[in-house]
Amino acid sequence: MKVDGKNLRTIWLDADEKTVRIIDQRRLPHELVLVDLHTVDDVTTAIKDMYVRGAPLIGATGAYGVYLAVLNAPHQPVEDAYLIAECDRIKASRPTAVNLSWAVDTVLAAVLQASPPEKRITAAGDQAALITELEVENCKKIGQHGLPLIEAISRRNKGRRVNILTHCNAGWLACIEHGTATAPIYAAYDHGVDVHVWVDETRPLNQGNRLTAWELGKHGVDHTIITDNAGGYLMQQGKVDIVIVGTDRTTATGDVANKIGTYLKALAARDNNIPFYVALPSTTFDWNLKDGVKEIPIEERDPDEIRYIEGLAKNKSTRVLICPENSAAANYAFDVTPAKLVTGFITERGICKATPADIRRLFPEKFSQS
Amino acid sequence: MKVDGKNLRTIWLDADEKTVRIIDQRRLPHELVLVDLHTVDDVTTAIKDMYVRGAPLIGATGAYGVYLAVLNAPHQPVEDAYLIAECDRIKASRPTAVNLSWAVDTVLAAVLQASPPEKRITAAGDQAALITELEVENCKKIGQHGLPLIEAISRRNKGRRVNILTHCNAGWLACIEHGTATAPIYAAYDHGVDVHVWVDETRPLNQGNRLTAWELGKHGVDHTIITDNAGGYLMQQGKVDIVIVGTDRTTATGDVANKIGTYLKALAARDNNIPFYVALPSTTFDWNLKDGVKEIPIEERDPDEIRYIEGLAKNKSTRVLICPENSAAANYAFDVTPAKLVTGFITERGICKATPADIRRLFPEKFSQS
Repeated sequence: MKVDGKNLRTIWLDADEKTVRIIDQRRLPHELVLVDLHTVDDVTTAIKDMYVRGAPLIGATGAYGVYLAVLNAPHQPVEDAYLIAECDRIKASRPTAVNLSWAVDTVLAAVLQASPPEKRITAAGDQAALITELEVENCKKIGQHGLPLIEAISRRNKGRRVNILTHCNAGWLACIEHGTATAPIYAAYDHGVDVHVWVDETRPLNQGNRLTAWELGKHGVDHTIITDNAGGYLMQQGKVDIVIVGTDRTTATGDVANKIGTYLKALAARDNNIPFYVALPSTTFDWNLKDGVKEIPIEERDPDEIRYIEGLAKNKSTRVLICPENSAAANYAFDVTPAKLVTGFITERGICKATPADIRRLFPEKFSQS
Repeated sequence: MKVDGKNLRTIWLDADEKTVRIIDQRRLPHELVLVDLHTVDDVTTAIKDMYVRGAPLIGATGAYGVYLAVLNAPHQPVEDAYLIAECDRIKASRPTAVNLSWAVDTVLAAVLQASPPEKRITAAGDQAALITELEVENCKKIGQHGLPLIEAISRRNKGRRVNILTHCNAGWLACIEHGTATAPIYAAYDHGVDVHVWVDETRPLNQGNRLTAWELGKHGVDHTIITDNAGGYLMQQGKVDIVIVGTDRTTATGDVANKIGTYLKALAARDNNIPFYVALPSTTFDWNLKDGVKEIPIEERDPDEIRYIEGLAKNKSTRVLICPENSAAANYAFDVTPAKLVTGFITERGICKATPADIRRLFPEKFSQS
């Protein structure tokens, strides 16, 4: 995506084929810092310490981690036992990330199947690149399928700008390019549709005002940061044409787990007859789940993420306490938006309603047993 | 209310009868600083610069401002023209605060009617005290009328703690004692009911995590700060028994203007069958309005209140930038919760439903023309 006029991804293999380069997202929005990963240790640190975030990007980082393990193995070609242990180490850097183990195991399998063993380095590099390009391709298709929704609103508005509200960061920073929720927005912008994005700041970690605002701004997309409290008012006043969000996990019945606060925006959208779309690659569907509110476990994180906030004071990153020292805080990271509040899913295969039948229409192979 | 074991109000006349004492609320929650007001200049600064906030407290501060004007007038007894000019100056310190002009004009009228003129100082002092006590009394009655709601939940829960969610600060810090939304909570706590309060932090100015958390904590009420995003999830999970909020302006038809984000909590309460109450003295009803969403103007404040946040770093109050330097922000201060989402109003005369008929039942004199 565009950053200061140049094209940038969140991760890539350098021309030297030895260096994996990423954006240190902890430094955004105040600084754009690129970091070189040379070793498996570098990769696990980048994942653990959240230089990188977002399921697709974590997956790609893990995939390139396997490549680095193969490339820098003490014996060449890399030995199976050594590589498997290194893969376990990469997967352990974020044990709950389904995408990470999938990506690592996929590259591992490609390496183990490479013949003769001298081709293991090439096999790892090719497979990591393939996983990365697959994520890019999925996001690109989500953009293409979502674009007509925005174009239709623009036509209905007779060209007046389309106001889109989004929550958290389901942008290219969480992926490789395009993003999920942002993919239709970038597609519309790149097609010359007049779009404007209301960016929920997304407390407590402020992925909205830190990351979404940054990436939209760098690509040139007009946007306005609002508090998480403001979306309902904006919808009441007709200032929102469509809501598009991402998801961390979606049931086969259409219930959507996403960053805490998403459910409140879905309720407001329904109350004001505003379409509420969820953009996702189909890998985010959990085909085994039926009731999101009951079955999806919600992570509770460190209360200090609520009690403290980090920002820039005199050009220096500074952490400040924003509540009474003795007050407790509770930090639930996600909520579940029931399918009844979701207008539709924008996937790499097209758009479907948030009903089991319509999800099955797009992904029949996932339902073959029933 | 209790602060470190002592009883405290937000405003009082010192025993010397020359000094009005207030809490400098800008320094909360990190420091409790009392400030002495001796002159009309002191009073207008306290109001303008938000040492004091909340309609009832601003009114009481203005009332005592008139007292100080009378007391310190260059000629005794105070001359009419001088006093009227000083009253205008006080009212101009927050032109939109209906309570402020009402309180100032009420004390002014009492002074002008005092006879002989030598009694003007006493008249001003008595009237300012009366206004203050009236506010206290109204809040106390709101507490008494709201208490049975909480007791009933406690009984239904077989004594298990009652979880109450509130938004913003409609606490004693916005009033003199008790508060409005907090009055039933303090009443329940003081009656030995096991209560726990979920405190919405209330971005952007964080009246929840700064003020509500502070005053609840100081009084001994168990509470937990949450982001504004979390309430919907807590309601889905059965962790909220009742929502009680305050209001800045409520229509005769029951539409409620309150701090931005209130509407989202009301939507979530309805979606989860949780009672949603609004506590208010009847002075907060605007008897002329019929459609809150269309008729109540919503203040748009400085975007930097969203872009920056203040907190404590190394024991020093510090302001940090929390978004990209070039991103715009929009800062709408209030939203309107339609009457259909409100379970009832807790007023100084009792509880009524959010319908014109039931509001009229409690306040028939306000509807006498129709």
